[in-house]
Parts: sequence; structure tokens; C-alpha cells
Amino acid sequence: MTQQAATPHLSPLAPKRFARLAPIAGVELAVGEAGIRYRGRTDLMLAVLAPGTKVAGVFTTSKTASAPVDWCKKSVKKGAARALVVNSGNANAFTGKAGFKGAEEVAVTAAKVLGCEPQEVLLASTGVIGEPLPWHKITTALGRLAQQASPRKWRDAARAIMTTDTYPKLAKATARLGGKSVTLNGFCKGSGMIAPDMATMLAFVFTDAKLPAKVLQELLSGGVGPSFNSVTVDSDTSTSDTLLLFATGKAGNKPVRSASDPKLRDFRKKLNALLLDLARQVVRDGEGAGKFVTVRVAGAESAAAAKRVAFSIANSPLVKTAIAGNDANWGRVVMAVGKSGEKADRDRLRIWFGKVLVAEKGERAPGYDEEKATKAVSGLEVEITVDLRLGKGKARVFTCDLTHGYIDINGSYRT
Amino acid sequence: MTQQAATPHLSPLAPKRFARLAPIAGVELAVGEAGIRYRGRTDLMLAVLAPGTKVAGVFTTSKTASAPVDWCKKSVKKGAARALVVNSGNANAFTGKAGFKGAEEVAVTAAKVLGCEPQEVLLASTGVIGEPLPWHKITTALGRLAQQASPRKWRDAARAIMTTDTYPKLAKATARLGGKSVTLNGFCKGSGMIAPDMATMLAFVFTDAKLPAKVLQELLSGGVGPSFNSVTVDSDTSTSDTLLLFATGKAGNKPVRSASDPKLRDFRKKLNALLLDLARQVVRDGEGAGKFVTVRVAGAESAAAAKRVAFSIANSPLVKTAIAGNDANWGRVVMAVGKSGEKADRDRLRIWFGKVLVAEKGERAPGYDEEKATKAVSGLEVEITVDLRLGKGKARVFTCDLTHGYIDINGSYRT
Repeated sequence: MTQQAATPHLSPLAPKRFARLAPIAGVELAVGEAGIRYRGRTDLMLAVLAPGTKVAGVFTTSKTASAPVDWCKKSVKKGAARALVVNSGNANAFTGKAGFKGAEEVAVTAAKVLGCEPQEVLLASTGVIGEPLPWHKITTALGRLAQQASPRKWRDAARAIMTTDTYPKLAKATARLGGKSVTLNGFCKGSGMIAPDMATMLAFVFTDAKLPAKVLQELLSGGVGPSFNSVTVDSDTSTSDTLLLFATGKAGNKPVRSASDPKLRDFRKKLNALLLDLARQVVRDGEGAGKFVTVRVAGAESAAAAKRVAFSIANSPLVKTAIAGNDANWGRVVMAVGKSGEKADRDRLRIWFGKVLVAEKGERAPGYDEEKATKAVSGLEVEITVDLRLGKGKARVFTCDLTHGYIDINGSYRT
Repeated sequence: MTQQAATPHLSPLAPKRFARLAPIAGVELAVGEAGIRYRGRTDLMLAVLAPGTKVAGVFTTSKTASAPVDWCKKSVKKGAARALVVNSGNANAFTGKAGFKGAEEVAVTAAKVLGCEPQEVLLASTGVIGEPLPWHKITTALGRLAQQASPRKWRDAARAIMTTDTYPKLAKATARLGGKSVTLNGFCKGSGMIAPDMATMLAFVFTDAKLPAKVLQELLSGGVGPSFNSVTVDSDTSTSDTLLLFATGKAGNKPVRSASDPKLRDFRKKLNALLLDLARQVVRDGEGAGKFVTVRVAGAESAAAAKRVAFSIANSPLVKTAIAGNDANWGRVVMAVGKSGEKADRDRLRIWFGKVLVAEKGERAPGYDEEKATKAVSGLEVEITVDLRLGKGKARVFTCDLTHGYIDINGSYRT
């Protein structure tokens, strides 16, 4: 079942340069070629974490979550981490009891190699669903990887976890926290939302801040809403989506005991910005993506209502194909607002493409200029703004267009 | 803004032959070329209905419904109908006050021509959203159409209301009712769910049965669930979806006063079968459709839960692209079950493609044969069956695959 690594074209939306991540005290990384499915590329990543590292996590809401997700949920409850093992090529999802055993074997072996408890080993897998995980290929590689671990392999790590991604996704930040400067490094992958051979969103953030697991969890849960929970490629939800935040505590900042501690202000801000940066990079590498689309909704009855309307627009195949075709088709935006189920008044609604007002008072805006509207949807970056003019709720979500590339990537044989 | 009529390739799923509809006492039809948007094809349809005709309707749930939908909702409350005017090429949706005026002008003119009340004229429009309706092109044509109306123009009527449809959709039935044989004729259009130049689902059913409007409404509301509300092409919802049922009363059957009258048994059965037939024809002409897909879900906690799981599968772009590519990718079905939000137990779930069991007990079925599974998804008709094994709720929905054809149709300029 091995196959050549895909060599997809670089997304036209890829960043001009990749972030260079500095070491973080207490984090060492290693990558290897375990030959799980791909040939001629790395597919295994180990992060070795200093004793005392705390962890928090947010996971897919899928009712058919993968074995590693089940495993991580337990680890995160305890809040202590000494290692993270991630493989690409096989998601270990819908693999039954054998899948759970595979996850356990990897965790137990890593724990032996590093001298910790199995539950202190966090796991993530991405790739084919329903194929038994060849876990022995992972366990036999772990000893060697632990010896090779170094503080500088961030980009290698980001590459090893890629599936249909066309570029590695990295971000960094520094923040003031309790009298110290602390560092945050993050990397992630994910280009559709899921599927055999591809997609799934995995994101890992590391910091040298000293923070209890409970505080980390509150920070992460708060930050995921406007970032990873505000992006969509194709409306599908992975069985494996995993976002983990590790804090090694090596920065030696003053203790923080509660997420409401004002000392966290700068750290929270930088963490949220880093999560948003990573989430946007995922959309920019959406399967077949040709354009990055920002959808803003204002004037809804609540923020939650605004987000549902925004997602109704961002997930609409008709809106997404129109954008792909440089078609300023605001009628489809009207349709998507209408089908969202949220309160909307046709005759109050205003719609903009970029800065061009295209619709208001239940009809085409006076002075509507097709040429200007078309120009506003013809670039690599498109902004759709809707003001419902009913209340104060607002939301912003990110998506990409729907192109022949998406069909090519997802409509072909697995083998 | 006129343009050549589209000449799309006939859907590979088109019926081998079209139903031949016999006259129905009290219904006369006429079609014309009003030049609303298309050139060289009919785009206007008038049905003249005998005095005493009753009407019931079901409409889009969109919060941004079109002017004709708003108009029809009022008419249906009164329950009396003397005419139906349908145009293609322009949806008269999101056209503000001018849109309402356009609808009113058409109804008032038809009422004058036929000697009835404006509210007895039912209206439907399909085509571009947001363009002012050139209603005068319709009103000036109505007098001529009324003179030409004949009992035999069913196929012409079905053609005149087409947009991106590749074939006219017709169905017929006869039923025993109150000592008489009554006839049902229906036609419809719709190939995506909506959009400029295309889609929207419009369906019209006529019978010579004598039934009060209240009974008609109950029959129609009951029949729409397993038919038109069980189909999806792209998950998008039109601003204009309209289903109307007209009863001229000319059959002279014994009176029926309640929808629970046992005399309705055969009529209800035949009506429901006719609605299902028409709904399936819509899916078979889905934009870019290459395959007709039936999704069955059993063992859910309730029928409503089963339907939500079925739609989660039927609307998943990843499932639909896999089917397009003859890929027996049951992992994507697992994903779609998991994201539905309904209760599902990964380890109880069973999944079949056709008659091939592909997954059970949380993993690939023992003896899984890739070749057989691939064959099961490689024909023009594909069946996906999921048994959640939790309860007794079941549902069946119909969809089509997602192909390059869909992107071609929807990703091009409107003009």
C-alpha cells in the first residue's frame, strides 16, 4: 500500500516565506521515514518534552473520532505531557479494537524510550481511514528518533505531518508574561477537512511559559472559536482534528493560577493571533484553493447567529464556485443568507464584495457597477460582507473557493 | 441581457422515455416565447384552470424568498385558483418593491384576461436573482397565450419552465377516489438548488379530483417529506422553491371533507408516488450529475435523526466526489455520519455500498473485497446504506455525485 509522495503544485495562496522558529526550552523534535504509506518522504514526528510540561487540547466533535483522539482526550484530562508522536499516511480512524491497540503500543513504546507514563504521550495520526495502522513501523523507529531529537527541527516537523498540504505551516510569537519574555511556536497541517490520503486538521503549539493545565485549557478553548473554529474548506469534519497546546514551564515566569489573571493579557493576545495565523494558513492551502475568502457578517441577532450565517455563505458550493469563476454573483449570497435558518430581513440586508456595495433594500444597489463588482471578486483575496441590520451580532470566517482542483484531488481512486 | 438558450448535454441519468400526459378536465395550457432572457426557446407558461379549482402549496423555507413565493403564500391561504403563470430566465427574487409590483402586474393582467380575482392567479419565476423582472414582456403575452390554451400541451409546459435542466420532467397517475377514476398530471424543473441562470425547484401537480383546499394542503404537506424534501443536489436552498397542487373538481367524485377520510387511500398513495417520481427526476438532472445516489439510513434514534444523518452523507462534498471517481471510500461515509451531530456509535455502525458490507464493528468488514466494493460504486446508480443499530428510525434520501460538470456549470460568468 505504499505510494509515491504526492508532489502537488504549491498553492497560489502560499505565504511568500515560511516563519523561522527559534528553539523553545524543553522541546526537542525529530522526524523520520517510517514508510507508513508514503515513500521518499518523512512521515513520523516525535516531540520530546521536558518533565513538568503541561498540556491542553481541543478535538473534533465527530461521533466517529479516531483512536488517537480518544487517547488524547484521556491524557489531556490529566494535563501532563512528556512526548507527542504524530504520523502521516494513516489516520488510525475507524480501525476498531486494533486501532486502539495500535495507539496504545505507540504510547507505551514512547513512554519506555523516554521514561514516562504512557498517558503522558500524546498521539495524532492523519491519512487513510479504515486501514489498520502499521504501528510496529512507528514503534521500531521511536528509539532512533529520541536519540536524534534536537531543538531546531520545527520546519522538518511541520513537513513530516503533511498529507495533501502543499506547504508546511508554521507560526511564532513572543509575549510578556509574569516578568519574563516567553516564546510560542506552532505548526499545523490540513487542507480539506478529512479523508483517506489527505486532509484532517492537526495543530500543535508549544511555549516555554509556566502555566497550569487548567489555565492552558481555558486559553485554548477561548482561542479556538475565532481561529480554527472559524475556517472551512468543504464543510466536512475530520474524525481526527486535534489541536494541542504544550507549556514546558522553562521560562520561569511568575505563577499564574487562573485564566482571568491580568498577567495573561499579552500571552492570550499573542496565542490567539498565532492560532488565527495557523488557521488561515490551513485555508490558504485548502484542497484546490485558488482564492482566500473572508466572510464577515454583522448586524445579526447574536454572535452565534452571525457565525451560522457566515458559515452558510462560506460553505455554499454555489457561492464558492461563483468566486472561483470571478463571478460577482451576489444572488447566491442572498440565497445562502436565506437558507441559514437565522433571522434575516430581505429588505434590510446589505451585501458588499470588497468595498463595492452590491445589494440593499431587497434589490440590486443603485448605481451597481458589474465591472467594479467583478474586479472585487477577481483577485487572490476576496471579501464578502453582509450586514443583516437586525442586531449587534457579528462574526468573521475564512474559506476558499471551490475549483476543478478540489474534484481532481478528491474524485480519484485511493489506490 | 438576452442570451442563447443553453444546449447542455442530456444527463446520462435521463429517463429513456418521457411520460405522455393525457388531458385533465378543467386544465388548459399554453406556452410562449416572451424573450425574458433566453432567445429561441419558450420561457412563459400559462395554465388556465376551470372555475372552482382548489389549490394547495409548499414553499421554500428561505428567509429571502422571492416575490412570487410571497404572492403564492397569500393565494394558497384562500385556496382558490384560476390560473398559473410561470416564467423562466428571471427569478424575480431579491428585486425589492419593483419585484412585488412585477408579480402583481402579472397577476392583475392574467386576472383581467381570464375574468377572475388577482389572488386566484398563482405565480412562479425561475432564473437570475436580483435582476428586475421585465414584467411587461409577460403581461403583453398573456392575452395571446389565453387564446391558445389547449388541454394537450403538457410537455411544452414542462419545457418552457426549464433553466439548466437537460430534459423536461413529467409524471402521471390515475387513482380511485369516491367512486370515480381520477387523473393526476405533474411536471417540474430544477437541477441545482438555485442560482442565476439556473436551478430552483418548481413543481406543479394537477388533478380533476374534487377536494377541498384544506384536504389538498394536508395531502401535499404529507407527501413532500419523503419526496421533494428528501432530495439534494448541492445542499443549497432556492429562494423560489414552489410546489403547487391544483384540483379542478371535474371528476365528480363523492365529497371528501377530511384528509383522514379512508376514501383517500388510493389517491394519497398515487399522489405520493407521483411526487417521488418527479423529485427523483430532479436529482437525475442535478447539475453535472453522473450518478444517481440513494442513501438509506436505518437504526437511528428517530426518523428525524436518520434523515439528518442521511443528508449529512448526501451533502458531503467528499462523499460525492468519491462516488464521482468510482471510489468505494467508506471512510468518508464514516466521517459524514460522525459530523452529522446525531448519536452514532462508531463500533456498532454498519455500512454497505450496494449489497457489499464494507464496514462493521468500528473497522473494515472482515473479508472486505476492494474490487467488489469498487464495482458497487461504479455504475450509474449507487446505493449507500448505513445501519446505526441504535434505534428504529430510518430515512431514505436521494442525491447525485459532484463532478467537474458542476464546477463548469456554476463557476462561469453569468454574462
